[in-house]
Amino acid sequence: MARPAALSGFPEWLPQDRIVELRLLDTVRSVFELHGFASLETRAVEPIEQMLRKGEIDKEVYVLRRLHAEDGEADAGLGLHFDLTVPLARYVVQNAGHLEFPFRRYQIQKVWRGERPQEGRFREFTQADIDIVGRDTLAFHHEVEVALVMAEVFRALPCPPAVILVNNRKLAEGFFLGLGASDTAAALRAIDKLDKIGPEKVTGLLRQDAGLSEEAAHKCLQLASIRTPDTSFVDQVRSLGVDHPLLDEGLAELSAVVGAAAARMPGAVVADLKIARGLDYYTGTVYETQLVGHESVGSICSGGRYDQLASDGKSTYPGVGISLGLTRLLSVLIGRGLVTASRSVPTCVLVAVVDEENRRASDEVASQLRSRGISTEVAPKAEKFGKQIRYADRRGIPFVWFPEGDATHSVKDIRTGDQVLADPALWRPPESDLAPSVRVVASEPASPENKEIHP
Amino acid sequence: MARPAALSGFPEWLPQDRIVELRLLDTVRSVFELHGFASLETRAVEPIEQMLRKGEIDKEVYVLRRLHAEDGEADAGLGLHFDLTVPLARYVVQNAGHLEFPFRRYQIQKVWRGERPQEGRFREFTQADIDIVGRDTLAFHHEVEVALVMAEVFRALPCPPAVILVNNRKLAEGFFLGLGASDTAAALRAIDKLDKIGPEKVTGLLRQDAGLSEEAAHKCLQLASIRTPDTSFVDQVRSLGVDHPLLDEGLAELSAVVGAAAARMPGAVVADLKIARGLDYYTGTVYETQLVGHESVGSICSGGRYDQLASDGKSTYPGVGISLGLTRLLSVLIGRGLVTASRSVPTCVLVAVVDEENRRASDEVASQLRSRGISTEVAPKAEKFGKQIRYADRRGIPFVWFPEGDATHSVKDIRTGDQVLADPALWRPPESDLAPSVRVVASEPASPENKEIHP
Repeated sequence: MARPAALSGFPEWLPQDRIVELRLLDTVRSVFELHGFASLETRAVEPIEQMLRKGEIDKEVYVLRRLHAEDGEADAGLGLHFDLTVPLARYVVQNAGHLEFPFRRYQIQKVWRGERPQEGRFREFTQADIDIVGRDTLAFHHEVEVALVMAEVFRALPCPPAVILVNNRKLAEGFFLGLGASDTAAALRAIDKLDKIGPEKVTGLLRQDAGLSEEAAHKCLQLASIRTPDTSFVDQVRSLGVDHPLLDEGLAELSAVVGAAAARMPGAVVADLKIARGLDYYTGTVYETQLVGHESVGSICSGGRYDQLASDGKSTYPGVGISLGLTRLLSVLIGRGLVTASRSVPTCVLVAVVDEENRRASDEVASQLRSRGISTEVAPKAEKFGKQIRYADRRGIPFVWFPEGDATHSVKDIRTGDQVLADPALWRPPESDLAPSVRVVASEPASPENKEIHP
Repeated sequence: MARPAALSGFPEWLPQDRIVELRLLDTVRSVFELHGFASLETRAVEPIEQMLRKGEIDKEVYVLRRLHAEDGEADAGLGLHFDLTVPLARYVVQNAGHLEFPFRRYQIQKVWRGERPQEGRFREFTQADIDIVGRDTLAFHHEVEVALVMAEVFRALPCPPAVILVNNRKLAEGFFLGLGASDTAAALRAIDKLDKIGPEKVTGLLRQDAGLSEEAAHKCLQLASIRTPDTSFVDQVRSLGVDHPLLDEGLAELSAVVGAAAARMPGAVVADLKIARGLDYYTGTVYETQLVGHESVGSICSGGRYDQLASDGKSTYPGVGISLGLTRLLSVLIGRGLVTASRSVPTCVLVAVVDEENRRASDEVASQLRSRGISTEVAPKAEKFGKQIRYADRRGIPFVWFPEGDATHSVKDIRTGDQVLADPALWRPPESDLAPSVRVVASEPASPENKEIHP
């Protein structure tokens, strides 16, 4: 086999980086489960017509075909899912009779998009979603809840600080209506382009497409510039002198989200009134997330409230959800050297082998250590001890065990060189060495704020 | 949306069954990591020509195409992987310079095959593989090791007992050669069909295709009937009076595997001399696994030793691996009602809400419980307590917490009705209630041997 090349857009990690990914996955799952979200996994494929309903993304779908397909096969017309929301909507309608509502689920899976690969954009990537889906109704407080769950996720993850930016569709729409906009969707689309095309062109769009006056367009830009870590945005919006009942509702909801977050986790959630979330069908709170110091990679965690996730004739299913781009986050952490794993294997102890005839004695020690939850390998070859120690060292395995008859077992910390007598039925490594640790590397290497994460 | 139908061959589970699947996944991973296997995840796609090398399975591959593909796209010619061995071989050659050998990896991922769905056969399913890959050489003792790791997996899983059946290609091939077979591969193929076509037709194939005499063919059938839980198979083979150096080697290797297993885990590994593993390119030990009492579903865990997993001109990469068919196992466990999960959510405690104005007090209790690792939800609606208790009951949540001012918190076990005063900063549930438990349901419901598995 000639050396195969990597496939652009289909990231794969070396074992050491995969340990970082596992830590992200485990942390995310653990926080989701602490909050009572149930795990769900859906099949990788959906009928293509189902996925094309959103209209915009048809170019990005990967279609499946059996290599020797015949016409009319049952699996014809299937494509790989491009997100986890379309499958959730389908799953809820399909299984509504077996689910309890509000249905709280998390889902951590690969998704596929035929996009042009670039930093932060992949053709295959992992998303970690939570959604709360009601039948016919869904209380507003869940819009506060999902932001706080994700803020806890970021606090627990080995990564630079993240800020969840929130806005509210009712607030923006009410503001545009209060200004007499003829097309609030056009106004939203214009504001969404602010970072890309600048305030001057956005003003043009607001006047031309949304039917706003020069002064009203200016107020929209003022609104979009408001960003506060507390509820002080309310007074700033009020001072713009716009009135509308929908604006009042939006201000109250956004206050509730930001106020609760400020009380529980100061700084984690910020009101940012330019967040629009493009053309997605959100109807209340919307979320985006910036990794502080790495804003250029774009939002790593987004979502919002939608009044109609799905409907089956009898019922509609409103929901609120937020989706963490795990692969995007990981690619930043690894690509920019922001985290390191302490080793490339789960192994805590390598048991040396004195000679091949006595391999079984080493197997026995390994078995005793494993029975107490200590990840252990036995050296693959009865080489000189120096070579067996190098086997451990190259993988970052911290301890080498020397079985030398019942009374003289010893274990060596190969990082310090300390060697002590030890009983395989009793010895334990320090808790911090049991599993690989994942460390955030601060930009100033001497910073005391380096975050050490142990399992 | 009309109610969508399930897609045949693409299994999905309800939340309660997904909890069983998670338990399987967690158990498998935990045993693999205890033995120092590093996690690996490869992309879902491989170049089609890479996958067709095995020749036999081309009909089963799903090919990808972007919905609006143009000619000559970089992602043209890709298919979904149908196993985890082809991707491993490609990954090892691609990254050999960055890996340490022997490379011990586990991989738990979905694979896809365009097969006709039936019980135990799916189009999308999860496999859990371990492999140990050497560079140029790989010691025999790893063939013992992987069988023992999988035996430990089965001991830890919430499932009926499993028996790993082992044979050795050298043993079979040496036996055929000692009998003067002209085509040992043909003899192997014939024995592989024993269960399907019966001894008479197999005798015909052995004479016709493998060039064996009637008496020699009879000895092959006698060989195939040998099955022992210890090394007594050696004497049984010897008594057939066949001699060949390769047979000696095979007998020694198989003795080593079965002997070590009998010493460490009596009954878990059995020598079964009719195991052939079809046309796969194994060169030493081969493995299959039967779920006791459910043999008809076929092998749930198979693999073997291959002298050349891959090669890159400079080096060859021998390996030994074994692959657990997790979805097949799960579908038997769930489909036949062999296991149950104690609840459908991770939640241990539901905190009741007295009225919506005091939701924050309930949030605060939940936060305190979660900080000590107790999965907690807050009731979605401040209904009558009876309704809030039913919310918990329908999901199997064991405890409901009633916040009634600082001094009078109480918590109720809704299974027993017991209610006690409790401090949200101190109270802990019994360890066995912290996470959902998964229980093996014995065929005799009153059997004391029911296996209760807690995390």
